Amino acid sequence: MNHDTATPVTIIGLGLMGRALAEAFLKAGHPTTVWNRTAAKADRLVAAGALAAPTAGDALKASPLTILCVTDYRAVRELLDANGGELAGTTLINLTSGDSAQARDTARWAEQHGARYLDGAIMAVPPAIGTAEAVILHSGPQADFEAHRSTLGVLGTVTYLGADHGLASLYDVAGLAMMWSVLNAWLQGTALLKTAGVDAAAYAPFARQIAAGVAEWLPGYAEQIDNGSFPAEVSALETDARAMAHLVEESEAVGVNAELPKLIKAMADRSIAAGHGGEQYPVLIEEFSRPHAG
Amino acid sequence: MNHDTATPVTIIGLGLMGRALAEAFLKAGHPTTVWNRTAAKADRLVAAGALAAPTAGDALKASPLTILCVTDYRAVRELLDANGGELAGTTLINLTSGDSAQARDTARWAEQHGARYLDGAIMAVPPAIGTAEAVILHSGPQADFEAHRSTLGVLGTVTYLGADHGLASLYDVAGLAMMWSVLNAWLQGTALLKTAGVDAAAYAPFARQIAAGVAEWLPGYAEQIDNGSFPAEVSALETDARAMAHLVEESEAVGVNAELPKLIKAMADRSIAAGHGGEQYPVLIEEFSRPHAG
Repeated sequence: MNHDTATPVTIIGLGLMGRALAEAFLKAGHPTTVWNRTAAKADRLVAAGALAAPTAGDALKASPLTILCVTDYRAVRELLDANGGELAGTTLINLTSGDSAQARDTARWAEQHGARYLDGAIMAVPPAIGTAEAVILHSGPQADFEAHRSTLGVLGTVTYLGADHGLASLYDVAGLAMMWSVLNAWLQGTALLKTAGVDAAAYAPFARQIAAGVAEWLPGYAEQIDNGSFPAEVSALETDARAMAHLVEESEAVGVNAELPKLIKAMADRSIAAGHGGEQYPVLIEEFSRPHAG
Repeated sequence: MNHDTATPVTIIGLGLMGRALAEAFLKAGHPTTVWNRTAAKADRLVAAGALAAPTAGDALKASPLTILCVTDYRAVRELLDANGGELAGTTLINLTSGDSAQARDTARWAEQHGARYLDGAIMAVPPAIGTAEAVILHSGPQADFEAHRSTLGVLGTVTYLGADHGLASLYDVAGLAMMWSVLNAWLQGTALLKTAGVDAAAYAPFARQIAAGVAEWLPGYAEQIDNGSFPAEVSALETDARAMAHLVEESEAVGVNAELPKLIKAMADRSIAAGHGGEQYPVLIEEFSRPHAG
């Protein structure tokens, strides 16, 4: 790809992640305009071929596609508010971290100012940008995503989730909850096994196998949730709860942290108290779907 | 295999799981003796070819290998205490659920009475017994395990963990913690996405991919734990904590349960407060390895 055919892109926000995004576009031959509140952060990118716009408004005008990657949605809105007149006809892709309500609000505001708007979430660390490992989620109008899919593909593995602008944020935090949960369960197990002198390296393959195995159950279990019916085909929740008590007791007996085991048991106990002891694990969706007062 | 060559086995305890164990041995052609406090539970097994021993002592004497699968370790000890004279030279495999201290105590007692003793844990539901899906963990003297490995293989995929009799219980609860954590993280994500009208079936493949992907990191992360050194090669804990705040806020904003997100963040916050904000996630092993007062 060369400068004659590649879509010009603008990157606003040159933190670690913004700089990684700009570098990926430069490397792929896209005319790349950059802007940052602290201008010096553009220096290395300019040396690599980027154009530093003097103002955010100039940056927005320089390309048909602008990627926003700033501190938070408040910074996004301040920046857009000050340049509302420059937005008509442009496409904004907001990769700033925030929540689903902020994404929907910002989408509404941008559309009112004549911009096309996609909200996104980067499930990767800056060094992974530009490789297939970097998963970048997008939500908003599908036509706007498809128009820029190949350009965005320079950044990593791009995924389209749906028209609701809040989806990228929701999938992002849901995926992170899975990531930290696998890591925490592994740390719980590692801590338990360390009390018997077992190395973390000796335990890790076992934990990996269980995590990968249970991951395979999820699509089947999802059917129970979508059907709203939880027959105990494999195991009943009250049987699980007895094993949860063993996990709590063992954690306490060997002197490791027992908070995660206790939370696991508390969620199940509440569901059993609500009459679901004879049903299967996914019935806990009812507990996960409502706040707990306590 | 036929009755002339297959090792005779005894099963004590004929709950759902004990009956499944006995059925697997009968199907594989092992002379199978059974005993249960409530004798009627043996009826179907006797019809299928099992021998019902009149007393637990007779059951222990009937085979060189006895598998115990009763309610708890208290029941194990009552049963063995009453039959201490029958134990010399026999091999006991205790698949009763319990903790690592109970396993070690019972091993010591059994060995003092002249028995060989392995402690085990069944990571499967009764209908899986007799298939490769049923993983059965064993710990205790390796020679005793090897002597009966092929007989035990009738029950499922048998694994030997080490000489410490407590290992089977510890691996068991550690694996269960992983199982419930993957399921709970998936339920958290499913609850979050449901607020945007996304079906559980639509979200499940994404959750599966994240869980399986993170599982692959564990052996590498284990090296950091075994080395006691946690350089932030991929991401620093304080960066993770900002994303954890998004998870908590999003969960609260859309009205789903936030206990799991809050626990994830609390563990990281404590580690950051202890000075580890610039290190990588596995440094949390220090938090997981000690009880939390509160």
